Amino acid sequence: MTYPLFTKHEDTLQKALAAIETRGYWSPFTEMPSPKVYGETANTDGEAAFKSHLNRTFELDQPATTETVGAEVSPFGFPLGIRYPKADVNALIAASTRAQRDWRAAGPKAWVGVSLEILSRVNRASFEIGYAVMHTTGQAFMMAFQAGGPHAQDRALEAVVYAWDQLRRIPADAHWEKPQGKNPPLAMRKRYTVVPRGTGLVLGCCTFPTWNGYPGLFADLATGNTVIVKPHPGAILPLAITVRIAREVLREAGFDPNVATLLATDPNDGALVQDLAQRPEIRLIDFTGSSQNGTWLERNAHQAQVFTEKAGVNQIVIDSVDDIKSAARNIAFSLALYSGQMCTAPQNIYVPRDGIRTSEGPLSFDAVAGAIAGAVQKLVADPARAVELLGAIQNEGVTQRIDEARTLGRVLAESQTLEHPAFAGARVRTPLLLQLDAATDGAQFTREWFGPISFVIATDSTAQSLELAGEIAAGHGALTLSVYSIDDAVLEAAHEASIRGGVALSINLTGGVFVNQSAAFSDFHGTGANPAANAALADAAFVANRFRVIQSRVHVEPKAVPA
Amino acid sequence: MTYPLFTKHEDTLQKALAAIETRGYWSPFTEMPSPKVYGETANTDGEAAFKSHLNRTFELDQPATTETVGAEVSPFGFPLGIRYPKADVNALIAASTRAQRDWRAAGPKAWVGVSLEILSRVNRASFEIGYAVMHTTGQAFMMAFQAGGPHAQDRALEAVVYAWDQLRRIPADAHWEKPQGKNPPLAMRKRYTVVPRGTGLVLGCCTFPTWNGYPGLFADLATGNTVIVKPHPGAILPLAITVRIAREVLREAGFDPNVATLLATDPNDGALVQDLAQRPEIRLIDFTGSSQNGTWLERNAHQAQVFTEKAGVNQIVIDSVDDIKSAARNIAFSLALYSGQMCTAPQNIYVPRDGIRTSEGPLSFDAVAGAIAGAVQKLVADPARAVELLGAIQNEGVTQRIDEARTLGRVLAESQTLEHPAFAGARVRTPLLLQLDAATDGAQFTREWFGPISFVIATDSTAQSLELAGEIAAGHGALTLSVYSIDDAVLEAAHEASIRGGVALSINLTGGVFVNQSAAFSDFHGTGANPAANAALADAAFVANRFRVIQSRVHVEPKAVPA
Repeated sequence: MTYPLFTKHEDTLQKALAAIETRGYWSPFTEMPSPKVYGETANTDGEAAFKSHLNRTFELDQPATTETVGAEVSPFGFPLGIRYPKADVNALIAASTRAQRDWRAAGPKAWVGVSLEILSRVNRASFEIGYAVMHTTGQAFMMAFQAGGPHAQDRALEAVVYAWDQLRRIPADAHWEKPQGKNPPLAMRKRYTVVPRGTGLVLGCCTFPTWNGYPGLFADLATGNTVIVKPHPGAILPLAITVRIAREVLREAGFDPNVATLLATDPNDGALVQDLAQRPEIRLIDFTGSSQNGTWLERNAHQAQVFTEKAGVNQIVIDSVDDIKSAARNIAFSLALYSGQMCTAPQNIYVPRDGIRTSEGPLSFDAVAGAIAGAVQKLVADPARAVELLGAIQNEGVTQRIDEARTLGRVLAESQTLEHPAFAGARVRTPLLLQLDAATDGAQFTREWFGPISFVIATDSTAQSLELAGEIAAGHGALTLSVYSIDDAVLEAAHEASIRGGVALSINLTGGVFVNQSAAFSDFHGTGANPAANAALADAAFVANRFRVIQSRVHVEPKAVPA
Repeated sequence: MTYPLFTKHEDTLQKALAAIETRGYWSPFTEMPSPKVYGETANTDGEAAFKSHLNRTFELDQPATTETVGAEVSPFGFPLGIRYPKADVNALIAASTRAQRDWRAAGPKAWVGVSLEILSRVNRASFEIGYAVMHTTGQAFMMAFQAGGPHAQDRALEAVVYAWDQLRRIPADAHWEKPQGKNPPLAMRKRYTVVPRGTGLVLGCCTFPTWNGYPGLFADLATGNTVIVKPHPGAILPLAITVRIAREVLREAGFDPNVATLLATDPNDGALVQDLAQRPEIRLIDFTGSSQNGTWLERNAHQAQVFTEKAGVNQIVIDSVDDIKSAARNIAFSLALYSGQMCTAPQNIYVPRDGIRTSEGPLSFDAVAGAIAGAVQKLVADPARAVELLGAIQNEGVTQRIDEARTLGRVLAESQTLEHPAFAGARVRTPLLLQLDAATDGAQFTREWFGPISFVIATDSTAQSLELAGEIAAGHGALTLSVYSIDDAVLEAAHEASIRGGVALSINLTGGVFVNQSAAFSDFHGTGANPAANAALADAAFVANRFRVIQSRVHVEPKAVPA
């Protein structure tokens, strides 16, 4: 057997193996939308490719009915008008099941080779996918390109390499020979076959369809499963383009393209998803979305391995700082980036009510809160620059939530509606920052307020801040925790709080790294140790149960001579 | 930090790592009860140690009430009369939780070192544990010693080495440095802390308390969890001895011995177990037992990672043989060993109703069935030798099941009651072998008849036999599948059936290896791919989700100079 696609990408795979072991910086996919890397016309070609999808039916040669679905609307203010072939769920599952046999038999090197070839072609489509992500999620273009393109591809490759790191440990066969004293030894040849679970279901979200969708999709493919991708009805296009590329590669490699299929749906597809998620053929589910839906899957899709990322309450503990300005600037950026619509964006900022220490002397609570509010306002003061950071609000639910939140406490920074210079109808809002109190407002700040909504919360002490941080993370979930302190004992206590809360900790971020950012191959995204996610991107546990090993054994001639 | 116990056992660990990679024969624990290895007086000392437990209270210095529990009865015909300290469940959980902090902080090398030291001391107690296994499970001594001693220790070590193989891949820290073109790179130091889940619960069974209990127990310990061991009320002693040894080692190593605790119970402890299994502190559950209880845990203990081994229907497909005598002898041994009370023992033996080919010409269905029945009867003809193979029936439920089964079909070999020469009250039964028909008796043979009950089932063809085998394994669970054929195409079809059924396959066993036997480091026990077990002993998936990784990151000076 030869595995040309495996061989083609083996060098990347080896580097990725080294990267997950050392966890230093590494990425094979260029994050800058550079013409030198992606081609002089890549941007205009990508934008044209995106525009060519608008107001027509997306071509996808998979089992489908004659009907179409699709109701995506750009958060920048226009309907995409894209219709997708409507799949019959039974026919799709049947096609996915039929595709299993040859795909399963092809084995780990074929699965991994095909996965890497798909990824390399997805990388070439980064501009097209970037515009698709922009106009479904509301991310500004640079972020849509980076997070939806190369960074998502990094996370996909990470899932593939974790899968390979486990698969490569299983020998294809073994000679087993047990001494029997003076009698001839017992000898057997054993054969180990890696057997995928079956069909995986990837349930995408509307804010990071590729970044959050790729790990499950590529982990499934790299472990030999077939996969049905069901995007969020509000963000179908990025995953539709991805699935189409996957099908091209599969077909060229001689496989049934129905190894990867798309299930596009109209809005309000909850009942359809619940039915599908409990089908016996669905053996793996990767979900990103609400806690309600994620928990439902964990408790009801018993026939499947279920991987979920759900809601959480991300927190910042401010104990003391060298320089409040750089801390406030960094925090403000984290609040404003994609209008706080990142699962990693901070919400609760704890500051002792008696103020904090800085290298320039003490600073009152109000001064700290004011510094953060001021930094947010400065960051969004120029609408033309602000929209490149804020992007647009993905859906009306978020703008309604801003209105609802406004009454919770004293407004430190008001959420304003901005005009987008390029897109007249864009739904743009600046961050809302409120003041709350740990003593009285726990009912509000212990739940997620998804969107550009955050709270500066007065606490009795840093000790209380850290206690809240650990408790809320453990009880309500969290993907990030950030601490500012110039006191080593506090940093150690913050480390303990992060352990208790099962949440990743960032310390004294004042420069070009933001708490929302999580780098593949180095940062684990999610821990699986609190309610925000039952898995991490990516680790051994994310891949090791997506396949099983079936062995056979038969007697052979011993190699040793009797003792 | 030094890790003296890790260093002490590092050589064994390295050999075990090599063994799980190559999967050839390897074991550090001598399976023969040899005086040369275990000491000239080991047998008599072990028997004396066992007898010293009888009719008194087992000493265990863990949190307990003033009451005692325990109602074990030897299947060889006498009550053990052992009382165990009765634990208050809340107090036990509290003690286990208190023990977590220091144990968690000690880190992977401490966990693995302590686990290996416990194992090495358990090995020294193999005779004592062997007699304890014999007089709780009903296994004859040789099997009780081997399966309950060194083979169980092998499985424990296997779990430890799989845990270490995953733990060692997580670096303690990393330097991450991302180039920023002409600007100085972004540099961070990252720290990765392995954090155990919390408290594990091991739910033992009454037939293989150590062999089936050790993998979960040692996987939990090796990944830094504390563990509560709740033996089956009928087989407490082997695990009580084990936990006492574990506590000694923990105390000597400077840890709170409540890292490992025993929860001994009286019979009918179902309600207690269900309450305990849903406690929020219990984050891992390892269960061996009935499908009803295992499925309940899988569906209701949402707060825990649940690993189950449940009922199944093990099958043999006879297509053609070189020599019917050696095949029949091997099968008969598998049926008789420990009176078929092994989770791996065959139940359904499929033979085409038109007979089979042999190298000496065709053989009718009746001749094949007769050869197997004859081999069984020959094997148990001499009661003195038979009891060393059969052991005793663990409980009355099994003898009642034999009576119930008797009416299902034509009796090929009758189950007889034997007198045990050494134990007057021993509950000894020879295997019951019945003839059934694939066309009419599916309702009976698609479920497990635990005990010395098996069926020779007439099928239309080998193709039908294999179809049944794959279907029943996939639908009702199976741990083993065995095939006899001299036709390569049939062997390939059997391989496909084993893949469909998610079950390990043995081919043409006619010598000294039996389908019931599963060797650690080489044979995966269970696949996790059919209803008989949701996990395999052992693989990466068995250990990788027993811990999580919590990271922290902080800026440091870059190492590189700007480009």
